[in-house]
Amino acid sequence: MSLRCKLTYFRAMGLAEPIRYILAYGKADFEDCRVDYENFHQIKSKMPMGQLPVVDFEGKKLFQSIAICRFFAKKFSLVGNTDNHELECDMIVDTITDFRLHFRDLHFCEDPELKLKKKEILLSETAPFYLSRFQSVVNENGGFFVGAQLTWSDLYFAGILCFMESLLKMNLLEGYSYLECLREKVNNLDGVKEWISSRPKTDL
Amino acid sequence: MSLRCKLTYFRAMGLAEPIRYILAYGKADFEDCRVDYENFHQIKSKMPMGQLPVVDFEGKKLFQSIAICRFFAKKFSLVGNTDNHELECDMIVDTITDFRLHFRDLHFCEDPELKLKKKEILLSETAPFYLSRFQSVVNENGGFFVGAQLTWSDLYFAGILCFMESLLKMNLLEGYSYLECLREKVNNLDGVKEWISSRPKTDL
Repeated sequence: MSLRCKLTYFRAMGLAEPIRYILAYGKADFEDCRVDYENFHQIKSKMPMGQLPVVDFEGKKLFQSIAICRFFAKKFSLVGNTDNHELECDMIVDTITDFRLHFRDLHFCEDPELKLKKKEILLSETAPFYLSRFQSVVNENGGFFVGAQLTWSDLYFAGILCFMESLLKMNLLEGYSYLECLREKVNNLDGVKEWISSRPKTDL
Repeated sequence: MSLRCKLTYFRAMGLAEPIRYILAYGKADFEDCRVDYENFHQIKSKMPMGQLPVVDFEGKKLFQSIAICRFFAKKFSLVGNTDNHELECDMIVDTITDFRLHFRDLHFCEDPELKLKKKEILLSETAPFYLSRFQSVVNENGGFFVGAQLTWSDLYFAGILCFMESLLKMNLLEGYSYLECLREKVNNLDGVKEWISSRPKTDL
């Protein structure tokens, strides 16, 4: 029987998309509940830390997107085979978060001039810094982030890129062939492929 | 035989202190290597993601402070007894990070007027928001964050508070008796207690 849960998030890919990728990969039966930003205040106080995404699973409300991803990744055997593999997944995912925070910073910047400057630095310095390192890791690990096998770090990367690329309206991986190839592999996985072709179209 | 490693970080508690707490608790034989901010550029390129802390362990360079904490926590049986306990530790630690990022934001703010305003909001809104929720969690879990037993989420909390409180030069837990009590318990643990009494005094 497939795992059942309910995922609540905004009408966006954002922080929920890596969770959706992992649930789709695991053929989970998940309700994809989307709330408008305007209506969020009505449910905010019911959320454990006043934030989304939240996953209702077995009577509990799970919060923190990466913690949720890791939890389901264990259930779907996506954490590698050793403590070292688990560590490597965690190191990569938290580094992806460091990278993502630059996009969040850009997204919430309200000064148009400063925003343009931030975007320039992001594209000319930050993205090459992280992507070249990620490319090396994937090159050294047989086309995956960890242990020459599929782990949740690969799904996390492909899933969170949806938000990053939507924000900038561009392909961030151009010129990073190993990363492009990894993303293609993830997006064509059984379950993930069907999710991508059926998911609602959103701006972010 | 005790676990051996080398921790490299700045002359500060900061992101390294939770790692030091966990290593001290586990009676690890760790070299506590501290570099000046001015000299960091000399070693930056040798660090996997250009950042500190980094831990040298069994021939590998481990990066990302929370990933490192979780890895050693497993070795010292600090992750609870079930997948749910591991999840709960992760949810708490990542929420502590959300809280911590407000302190980082304050720390790096260069505009004195804006900085004062940020500090005001941090103390009047952000801190009560998080601390009251943490207090409820600890109250519901028999005086610990997870499963009525000591886990790395407790050590992480006490360790990262060192930075937060040093930055504001105040006791953040006043009025949160369950959290004060939890911190006392952690700071008096065998290993941690000796670490605290012998560690170098630093500003942050």
